[in-house]
Amino acid sequence: MKTYLLALAAALTLAANATQAVDPVVGKAKAQGQCAVCHGIDGIAKNPEAPHLAGEQANYIVKQLKAFKTGARKHDQMSIIAEGLSDEDAADIAAWYARIKVTATMPE
Amino acid sequence: MKTYLLALAAALTLAANATQAVDPVVGKAKAQGQCAVCHGIDGIAKNPEAPHLAGEQANYIVKQLKAFKTGARKHDQMSIIAEGLSDEDAADIAAWYARIKVTATMPE
Repeated sequence: MKTYLLALAAALTLAANATQAVDPVVGKAKAQGQCAVCHGIDGIAKNPEAPHLAGEQANYIVKQLKAFKTGARKHDQMSIIAEGLSDEDAADIAAWYARIKVTATMPE
Repeated sequence: MKTYLLALAAALTLAANATQAVDPVVGKAKAQGQCAVCHGIDGIAKNPEAPHLAGEQANYIVKQLKAFKTGARKHDQMSIIAEGLSDEDAADIAAWYARIKVTATMPE
């Protein structure tokens, strides 16, 4: 019984950590650091060289950050920035940008 | 005088061609072909694996298409699609997506 309870406690702790791992509010704070200067805190790029990130799928952003980190995708600034991000940082930041609502208006 | 007029005519022709080279309306028609199924004709992605392109800078889109074409950036589908696009196709398509107005609303 004691073993069972310990296993249950361990499982609950893991589950709690997994839930806490991705936090868009923390992601917003992290994005203020290095992302916002080019991509905007609202995901609308301020630098003409940078893409918008507003409303982008979290998985897409995480995948690109990993590609910059491994060198599969290359960009002078992004390679350095991605290098300094943990998986948790990337997930939080991606969650922030993914949560922004984006709307498009086509030219008439 | 005749040489001068011929040179002038040649310069005007070049200028006219340069102006015609990038056409967002033609780009819209081209985007309907292969881009819209994943990225949307309005640049809001329909495929969760694909990024939005609405309002993206034309230079950024052209740069990415070139990177897919040369293999500097890799993606199974995009590598094949970019391979089939001329510089003019890429410029037209980029001009279309760049012309779409994008707005972002941050979560409260």
